[in-house]
Amino acid sequence: MTALPASTANSPSPILLRETIDGGVAVLTLNRPAARNSLSLELIADLHAALDLIGRDDGVRAVVIAANGPVFSAGHDMKELTAHRNDADRGRASFNRIMTACSAMMQTIVLLPKPVIAAVQGVATAAGCQLVASCDLAVASERATFATPGVDIGLFCSTPMVALTRNVPRKHAMHMLLTGEPVKADEARAIGLINRVVPHGTERDAAIALAETIASKSSHTVKIGKEAFYRQAELNLADAYHYASQVMAENMMAADAEEGIGAFLDKRKPEWKDR
Amino acid sequence: MTALPASTANSPSPILLRETIDGGVAVLTLNRPAARNSLSLELIADLHAALDLIGRDDGVRAVVIAANGPVFSAGHDMKELTAHRNDADRGRASFNRIMTACSAMMQTIVLLPKPVIAAVQGVATAAGCQLVASCDLAVASERATFATPGVDIGLFCSTPMVALTRNVPRKHAMHMLLTGEPVKADEARAIGLINRVVPHGTERDAAIALAETIASKSSHTVKIGKEAFYRQAELNLADAYHYASQVMAENMMAADAEEGIGAFLDKRKPEWKDR
Amino acid sequence: MTALPASTANSPSPILLRETIDGGVAVLTLNRPAARNSLSLELIADLHAALDLIGRDDGVRAVVIAANGPVFSAGHDMKELTAHRNDADRGRASFNRIMTACSAMMQTIVLLPKPVIAAVQGVATAAGCQLVASCDLAVASERATFATPGVDIGLFCSTPMVALTRNVPRKHAMHMLLTGEPVKADEARAIGLINRVVPHGTERDAAIALAETIASKSSHTVKIGKEAFYRQAELNLADAYHYASQVMAENMMAADAEEGIGAFLDKRKPEWKDR
Repeated sequence: MTALPASTANSPSPILLRETIDGGVAVLTLNRPAARNSLSLELIADLHAALDLIGRDDGVRAVVIAANGPVFSAGHDMKELTAHRNDADRGRASFNRIMTACSAMMQTIVLLPKPVIAAVQGVATAAGCQLVASCDLAVASERATFATPGVDIGLFCSTPMVALTRNVPRKHAMHMLLTGEPVKADEARAIGLINRVVPHGTERDAAIALAETIASKSSHTVKIGKEAFYRQAELNLADAYHYASQVMAENMMAADAEEGIGAFLDKRKPEWKDR
Repeated sequence: MTALPASTANSPSPILLRETIDGGVAVLTLNRPAARNSLSLELIADLHAALDLIGRDDGVRAVVIAANGPVFSAGHDMKELTAHRNDADRGRASFNRIMTACSAMMQTIVLLPKPVIAAVQGVATAAGCQLVASCDLAVASERATFATPGVDIGLFCSTPMVALTRNVPRKHAMHMLLTGEPVKADEARAIGLINRVVPHGTERDAAIALAETIASKSSHTVKIGKEAFYRQAELNLADAYHYASQVMAENMMAADAEEGIGAFLDKRKPEWKDR
Repeated sequence: MTALPASTANSPSPILLRETIDGGVAVLTLNRPAARNSLSLELIADLHAALDLIGRDDGVRAVVIAANGPVFSAGHDMKELTAHRNDADRGRASFNRIMTACSAMMQTIVLLPKPVIAAVQGVATAAGCQLVASCDLAVASERATFATPGVDIGLFCSTPMVALTRNVPRKHAMHMLLTGEPVKADEARAIGLINRVVPHGTERDAAIALAETIASKSSHTVKIGKEAFYRQAELNLADAYHYASQVMAENMMAADAEEGIGAFLDKRKPEWKDR
């Protein structure tokens, strides 16, 4: 297990590390600790590219997104965000480019045919909180905190809100967004933003263990299920059942379902086709 | 109070028992304990038929779905699900038939003009967990557990997911679906899958008591409200208010509203028309 | 700080008091304690008018809705609701008028470009519970209770349900609506109906303190964010991101974002333009 830059072609600096762990778990580690792992355009592009590669890599069955340093991610890079203030358009084209790139990367997580698990070791704010919310699952240190404090600097966390409100009940999400106040890990779990709170320093291993659990399942089945999860969520009940029934029937035709159900009936361990 | 087969015409075997309790509560009991109350096509058809009958039966004002044996329901009958693997279509037509029948039965619960309450005494997995999620309310033993473990046999719980995700926050639902791990009753309550946890062995009585409480209300009012609950949930805010305002005005024209509000103003107990 | 009738032009009786607190917090106090602060057409109109005025008042940056007496609000005024039973239409036109007026007022809270915080000192039932659910945030006394008991008088809480189900998970909302039973403050917080529970008698001050916290932010930013919050909630993920990205870019062009981000980078306190 070695830590390597995720996409050496696109980025000579190792701001995103990629490791592959036996069993098909890829770990992407945000590695700009001095910059509080802020999501610069370069880091967004590296994350997007790494996720695209993982999406096509049959050897990867689950993904963990972790971070180095005390902060998970502080959101956008404020210096970069304001670097084009003196352009003729006062930076508008630059803002649009950044927001579009960031939103596309976040949606790549949702659309990735493999589960993505956040391992949150510290503070996750603004787009950093959005990154956690965008993952399918999240494990956090008991010391982790979560906030959407854009309101404090005159820039409401409107894109983080899209992910946040799809995890957290309205009044709790609104409180985070309007006050900018941090939410502790236990509370984040209670309101649905994360799945588990673990002792500090064990969050990465806990996320990898969870990823390994899921990686031991049939990847084809996980792919079918994750895609259906987000699609049916946007349909009304009748349409969702119509769609999900078709998904189930298609799923039944797959080799892994035949093997899995056969193994279940034979009381033996299934052997997935993609191993 | 006697336990009888729910629909002797359709099914000579008492795999679904039906009792009617004074006060208008029907109890449907899954009665295939040796088969872990798995939802065979026959049991799905019996449940559907029993619910249809109850929907038209003015004597029934609330429904409890309970189960005999240690398991509430283990979901689909795996032997039946794979019985047509050697057909020319490798079972596709059969799968479609089963999924369509099961989804239709689940939606019948939602569309039934009477409240349906699950009484969960044990393990509820896959379509068994979906059955709980599809009920309007659910009471469970402290020993009950809930899981969507299809992923373990290569068949993602895509149709159970439709009901589950309309009860439970996303990350918690995703954890159940991707890991297949069971959730205990207390946790199931915390995440919104069930309403109450009670001492083991009292869940059936607790569900019946809850059903009796609701059965003491005006059936016409409950019918109006349940229908509106699920319809408005699929509308945007403005449309939901437009629709619900009309429902309220129509409701006010009903005899039971006139009686109920009159009784309230006179400080007496209302006498509903349908008694 | 003086308590004055909210709209003396529309209403000579002080059934709605309005105070303005230094720092831009308006407090609207329901003041029909003898009538359990029931939402008569007059009180609905006064609330609506006061909110409209506040919406246009640059001096107000956040709103608290509180109530005098032991009850926060008991919902509609039952005597008024039944006053037209002997009309030729048995009251239908009157019901429609009341429901339309009430639904419009509730939506005015959601559409108001300033945050609205409920301060719940006691019982909040039916449309009173809806008023709490319609606010962006809610603080409640430990003695406060919440219920949608319309089912007990033959009039299902269909319009309160619209607001309730957009705050509270389905099974918990359904339990409140079908049983009419009250939910205590702690439970109301656990299910997402309110944000905080405080010692009895401190809920008004706690709500004002929360309002002051938000009022210290840029009003323009809060306005952008609140509007986007409710709009994106009704869009699918891709559309929500497309919309929110545009909102973020627009937000970046505003003077308060320039000032806020500048202050953040300079490590000084921002000075908002609207002060």
